[in-house]
Amino acid sequence: MSFFDRHQDLIEKAVQAAKVRGYWSAFSEMPSPKVYGESAPADGKAAFELYQGQKFELNQPGQGQWLSPEVSPYGVKLGVSYPKCDPQALLDAAKAAMPAWQALGARERVGLCVQAITELNARSFEIAHAVMATTGQGWMMAFQAGGPHAQDRALEAVAYAWEEQSRIPAEAVWEKPQGKNPPIRMRKQFEIVGRGVALVIGCGTFPTWNTYPGLFAALATGNAVIVKPHPHAVLPAAITVRVLRDLLAAQGLDPNLVSLFVTDQPEQTQALATHPAVASIDFTGSNAFGQWLMAHCKQAQVYAELAGLNHVLIDSTSAYKAMMDNLAFTLCLYSGQMCTTTQAILVPQGGIDTDEGPKSVQAVQTDLAAAIDRLLAKPEVACAVLGAIQSTDTLARIETAQSGQWGRVVRPSAALTHPEFAGARVRTPVLLACDAADEQAYMHERFGPIASVVTVPSTEAGIKLSERMVREHGALTVGVYSTREPVIQAMTEATWRSRVALSINLTGAVFVNQTAAYSDYHATGGNPAANASYSDSALVANRFRVVQRRQHIQD
Amino acid sequence: MSFFDRHQDLIEKAVQAAKVRGYWSAFSEMPSPKVYGESAPADGKAAFELYQGQKFELNQPGQGQWLSPEVSPYGVKLGVSYPKCDPQALLDAAKAAMPAWQALGARERVGLCVQAITELNARSFEIAHAVMATTGQGWMMAFQAGGPHAQDRALEAVAYAWEEQSRIPAEAVWEKPQGKNPPIRMRKQFEIVGRGVALVIGCGTFPTWNTYPGLFAALATGNAVIVKPHPHAVLPAAITVRVLRDLLAAQGLDPNLVSLFVTDQPEQTQALATHPAVASIDFTGSNAFGQWLMAHCKQAQVYAELAGLNHVLIDSTSAYKAMMDNLAFTLCLYSGQMCTTTQAILVPQGGIDTDEGPKSVQAVQTDLAAAIDRLLAKPEVACAVLGAIQSTDTLARIETAQSGQWGRVVRPSAALTHPEFAGARVRTPVLLACDAADEQAYMHERFGPIASVVTVPSTEAGIKLSERMVREHGALTVGVYSTREPVIQAMTEATWRSRVALSINLTGAVFVNQTAAYSDYHATGGNPAANASYSDSALVANRFRVVQRRQHIQD
Repeated sequence: MSFFDRHQDLIEKAVQAAKVRGYWSAFSEMPSPKVYGESAPADGKAAFELYQGQKFELNQPGQGQWLSPEVSPYGVKLGVSYPKCDPQALLDAAKAAMPAWQALGARERVGLCVQAITELNARSFEIAHAVMATTGQGWMMAFQAGGPHAQDRALEAVAYAWEEQSRIPAEAVWEKPQGKNPPIRMRKQFEIVGRGVALVIGCGTFPTWNTYPGLFAALATGNAVIVKPHPHAVLPAAITVRVLRDLLAAQGLDPNLVSLFVTDQPEQTQALATHPAVASIDFTGSNAFGQWLMAHCKQAQVYAELAGLNHVLIDSTSAYKAMMDNLAFTLCLYSGQMCTTTQAILVPQGGIDTDEGPKSVQAVQTDLAAAIDRLLAKPEVACAVLGAIQSTDTLARIETAQSGQWGRVVRPSAALTHPEFAGARVRTPVLLACDAADEQAYMHERFGPIASVVTVPSTEAGIKLSERMVREHGALTVGVYSTREPVIQAMTEATWRSRVALSINLTGAVFVNQTAAYSDYHATGGNPAANASYSDSALVANRFRVVQRRQHIQD
Repeated sequence: MSFFDRHQDLIEKAVQAAKVRGYWSAFSEMPSPKVYGESAPADGKAAFELYQGQKFELNQPGQGQWLSPEVSPYGVKLGVSYPKCDPQALLDAAKAAMPAWQALGARERVGLCVQAITELNARSFEIAHAVMATTGQGWMMAFQAGGPHAQDRALEAVAYAWEEQSRIPAEAVWEKPQGKNPPIRMRKQFEIVGRGVALVIGCGTFPTWNTYPGLFAALATGNAVIVKPHPHAVLPAAITVRVLRDLLAAQGLDPNLVSLFVTDQPEQTQALATHPAVASIDFTGSNAFGQWLMAHCKQAQVYAELAGLNHVLIDSTSAYKAMMDNLAFTLCLYSGQMCTTTQAILVPQGGIDTDEGPKSVQAVQTDLAAAIDRLLAKPEVACAVLGAIQSTDTLARIETAQSGQWGRVVRPSAALTHPEFAGARVRTPVLLACDAADEQAYMHERFGPIASVVTVPSTEAGIKLSERMVREHGALTVGVYSTREPVIQAMTEATWRSRVALSINLTGAVFVNQTAAYSDYHATGGNPAANASYSDSALVANRFRVVQRRQHIQD
């Protein structure tokens, strides 16, 4: 039985889900033994622990020295070492693996990708430990975002890839009538050919969730893929690559179709990214490197998700406390180390109307700080929500924010002691306050647990500022709180112009920084924060080309 | 009744045709009064003649001086003048027209586009005269390629635009189960938003066929379009723009959604193409300008069709005379002024096996020259097939070719007197001969009626050379003649690697330089001759973005 046949129901459900855009998930987000098997939690932990201090063998070509670049934000000693491979050897091997992958056809390529995704799902606990240890995410987020949610995004990308490829027939008969003469008849054959070797560059915070869409979109459309993980978050990518290589080999296919390129030297990544043989690049990370890629990698299609100025405008609310709790959770979750975390909260200088009566700007500042305090009151909850700080750059940024140079400190950040990991870099959010006129204070991305309450002259001015922030600096998420329909409408139209997703009056268990596969588009691809979206047709349609041949049919 | 409702059957047939890829056409390619109406030929001619010597009024904003840049290759005095408009005024007006176009929604946008295409079809005779007079095409080609075939390519692009947009729901309910608690329910709304103003830059040889796919793909996906025609072929574009503007105005929409930018100064086109408000560019034309656009217009998505080295490899044939006739017609049709015309005919030095016995390279050269002579024996047939030379650059290139510096002249070009147009620039093809080692002779595009028989060491060497020509210089078409299956297979695999369409053993009424809408992809988008194809999902999917909003559903 082919993998496509085995997974056909799942694939069709995923295709359908992406059309209906309601709630659907292929994989359970609960780390429950009932779903994943009684031994799954222990097995996953044991598998993770087996990697520590060991060489991660991949049997890739061009293998040279071993690197061990990971530093756990939890202070855990990982000590996993990875083979550094000659990029030219990886490229040559990737190119050599492509013809057989092409010959397999879209149907079986898609089938094998889905098989790989289900195998990754079975290893969700193991991957969750790897994600947690390398990124600093809390356990639940590491399991969900690193495991099933990432797998859902992968399946979603494969579903789009299948939609776009399945519409192309392998063969057609073209029969043109010629009046009373016999028709002209031609046989046409259509071969789907990948663009070439894809390079997928991961980030340090979401090494699977942000890597899988590009990885699986490229693979399913007939390309070889080299995965270049962030040097601090290699293990989740390495496990993923191994699953794919093992599966390919077991099917008699060349495992070098997918390989891992580990380096801690950006100039080596730059050299690979500008190599003529690299036909596409998926990138998640900093503006600086992303802009460099877009400017210099003219030989490749670049799909880039960079940083932006995510923000929320508060005009009024009928659920003040719930709004504050919702905002506080967004600011605290994974210490704000999400590309979707709110950075600025725009509040009109005259204050806001609420179900608890009018609230001044000062009250909003204080109440938001209090909501954060409330959420983080219990240390074990705090540590579970906050996780640890992934990068020392972020630690330094918190210090700068504390100094007051980006605005008055409303709520200072504090270091917490993690009950389980003594060396964990745990920090609570710093909340700042400034005026909209003081643009140097907030008009720049400050990745991490740093947010500002920005006083704007009025709601109308806030809508205009929001539009400009997105147009000029980009954003993945914008929120609005208002009880007034014209405000929501004006904000909606502003986000159409600036091309950013809008969340309206979130007061429950959905947060502005979360997107759901098959339903929410992650990034629009239409503002400076990202030139592509997870997941849509545009993410897959240009990753392959159709090469046709035609000849007369001889009667 | 909405336009979509009116044309729904046509749209669905076009969508289906592009999936089945058999023969289908929405419009009759025969310039027959029975199809187009008894008075259509005379009406079309009269409409065309009414333009001559007149101002072509479009009532566009920013109107300045009047330009009359067209020079007919037939020596006909056209004297049509066009308003030169301030690009900023056109851009501002285009942007202002977009919100209402967005609000119309994909369905009615697509409907209006199809209505415009059917109105263009009704004016096929008028447009054919305009195409013939400006491009130098013969009448039949001007009618077919300028009229129904261009309209089919337009409808095909709209069909893809509809496919990609219709899969996106306007609204969804997202309901996530919460175990024993009530589900989380959210309403999500999805707005399709165009990328921004599209610039569509036409060429001098096919002012409708090469302009319509970009024009209608951009329009249907929610964008405003500025059409910048080649200064020598403005009238067909001007008529098209007027049809669209009149239709928009009649529907109460802003006609400035579509405008014409006429200039004869390339630096003005460059300034417009790099304007921050231009979000996409469709270009057909020279490598030099196309490469400039791709290097400099970083703010825009660029869809470019440039030049390439189209060629045919002859290994053997079972129909020698029919092959020669087929090749001769390709070389003569519109004096080789097609982006798909064969430029090089690769022949192994040991000669070829044919149904008439072995033929030496010299025999192939002589017999191809003789086939050309045979086709052009009757002057009225010759002029109808050849048309006239569109550009003085091409005339100059013919002279250079005649000088022998690009290889030995096997068949010289000759000037013919057109029976109807005394001033017509009619030239027969020049056929050259050279060795594969002499790359300066043939490894460069020579647009126009210039082709070379290139002697290659062997069929195998010819296949390798073919792959290299496409990889390094690009091609839109490659042909092979062989009676040996392994040769066809090897050539097929070479074209997969170099990503170019292959025509095999064409000996009848299908020519390597012709592509059929809904069935043949024009360009693969995968070699240097073009970075996009007519028409596929990739041509439309990234012309719009989806902007979503979401909010809780209150029970």
